[in-house]
Amino acid sequence: MTVTATPLTKNDALNVVDRLQVMLAHDLAATETLLKERATSPVAVIPDLSGYIVSAGGKRLRPIITLAAAHACGTANHGTHALATAVEFIHTATLLHDDVVDDSDLRRGKKAAKNVWGSNASILVGDFLFARAFTLMVETGNIEILGILSDASSVIAEGEVRQLAAAGRNDLPTEEYLAIIEAKTAALFEAAARAGALSSGENCASHADALAAYGKNLGLAFQIIDDALDYGGTTSVIGKSVGDDFREGKTTLPIIIARRRGSSDDQTFWDRVMDVELQREGDLAHAIHLIRSTGAAEATLAEADAYAALAKTALKSLPQSDWTKALADLADFCVSRAH
Amino acid sequence: MTVTATPLTKNDALNVVDRLQVMLAHDLAATETLLKERATSPVAVIPDLSGYIVSAGGKRLRPIITLAAAHACGTANHGTHALATAVEFIHTATLLHDDVVDDSDLRRGKKAAKNVWGSNASILVGDFLFARAFTLMVETGNIEILGILSDASSVIAEGEVRQLAAAGRNDLPTEEYLAIIEAKTAALFEAAARAGALSSGENCASHADALAAYGKNLGLAFQIIDDALDYGGTTSVIGKSVGDDFREGKTTLPIIIARRRGSSDDQTFWDRVMDVELQREGDLAHAIHLIRSTGAAEATLAEADAYAALAKTALKSLPQSDWTKALADLADFCVSRAH
Repeated sequence: MTVTATPLTKNDALNVVDRLQVMLAHDLAATETLLKERATSPVAVIPDLSGYIVSAGGKRLRPIITLAAAHACGTANHGTHALATAVEFIHTATLLHDDVVDDSDLRRGKKAAKNVWGSNASILVGDFLFARAFTLMVETGNIEILGILSDASSVIAEGEVRQLAAAGRNDLPTEEYLAIIEAKTAALFEAAARAGALSSGENCASHADALAAYGKNLGLAFQIIDDALDYGGTTSVIGKSVGDDFREGKTTLPIIIARRRGSSDDQTFWDRVMDVELQREGDLAHAIHLIRSTGAAEATLAEADAYAALAKTALKSLPQSDWTKALADLADFCVSRAH
Repeated sequence: MTVTATPLTKNDALNVVDRLQVMLAHDLAATETLLKERATSPVAVIPDLSGYIVSAGGKRLRPIITLAAAHACGTANHGTHALATAVEFIHTATLLHDDVVDDSDLRRGKKAAKNVWGSNASILVGDFLFARAFTLMVETGNIEILGILSDASSVIAEGEVRQLAAAGRNDLPTEEYLAIIEAKTAALFEAAARAGALSSGENCASHADALAAYGKNLGLAFQIIDDALDYGGTTSVIGKSVGDDFREGKTTLPIIIARRRGSSDDQTFWDRVMDVELQREGDLAHAIHLIRSTGAAEATLAEADAYAALAKTALKSLPQSDWTKALADLADFCVSRAH
């Protein structure tokens, strides 16, 4: 497989997100207000901890998808803002729990919340944000959307458990890897896009499937790139330590491909290092070398490019507008991060 | 304060629960079926782990309250069964997270799930069950009930965080203790009763407040008794190690009262042992001695009795029936556990 999409340079890519932030300025401001307001609690640890992780920012990719999906087939309203906030709360809750489960020390370039307030607070504040997400959804009064996001939430948890069960498996099939990332990452992108579309009015039901397909494929591309970056990005840019997945024995696409293409010596290497207890000094560097020399890095990016292309194809059934154009560019941005 | 309720003996108490299980046989069977069906997943760890903790049983107190509340003002229907299941899933999710947060080794007389599948699986399966609870509620189509249970869920998490922040505080005011247990325990009893009532039909809205007040006061009584049992029950009967709260530095009512009534030597003792790092061999036995000799044990039970009495008073505005009688007896059962 060759690289099918023409990725933007990093500067152009920044402009896509900047452009969406300008286009969504009013909606994102309303969402930011809700993100602060709805994490309040008389129990100080809750706004402190959630403010710490929410204000660390990230790109607000999921709220952007929710809001832009609404605009792509109608207009964003107060309900859409509530949903964008709910989606970011669900995402934040999973980050808090992930950091505990993965024992990660860095998140978005800062110390993980669990390293500041402790794992117990991270677990419980995650639960709080998850519950608050549902209260926000209830306020929209749309039971169909509630169903979409509660189903997505159980699929996410299912994906996380599946990933846990797959840790250290050196024979993980590509299909199982894809099923895991579809559940743990793409399901929320998909639900965010569908919920945003449905929130914009009755006549948007027909576009919701297309936007959901966009979200799902974008989510797959995004996660594959994230997994590629773990063997190639730099900590200062992506706010995540390189080699985290490796040190946790997480079997991701770069390893699956490198192992499949490797010599029998390489396979012996992969079999050993996927047992984290047996990892030695220098193993990560050798893993990165193998991922590059076997072409696994490029093949991983090509896989992400293919999903980004599917995401863009899904947009074609929608009325074309600045919104569909921006969403298409966002798909390019997601893959451009690793090029 | 003296003991105001006449507690049942343990045998009579068992009969109350037996009676409710006969009265609710059809509804509880439907609920048990849903508890199994809705915890299914292709990811084996999920049904294994949730089946382990759900089938360990406990008394199904929260589903019983949901179902009996529906009958007390109408009749239980398929929606009520879904809600009873959702309430038990929310409860189970909090148990799974609590065991991780408290690092408890026993739950319902068995090894805690985290000691069998690991803390990570317990966190993520808890998330899964919580999400599934919302999917079940969505299926009832009743957005008011969804609001009640999502609000209760964030209050529960808030209570858990508040309890975490209070750990080791030897000067915890009684009011803060009560606020914590109202949030972490009574809120779900209250929501279960209100949701059950509302599920039984339009004309039950007027009785929902009374049943909610019953649930809240029953929950307070129940938790106070639970905290008393931590200094007096036996492991074989209550399925929980005596002294768990003590070893975790959890400040509960028996300690608050014993410390307030104690000599200055006693206060020095309490100040030391509430820092779990400073606990020594024999401290738990001395703590139990002080709780008994200062009358704190009896005063704690009296406080629980008072809430059980309030729970029974709340039932008086309802049409009197076998259901209101059984709910009143259930309040007596809750406090009888410690007598």
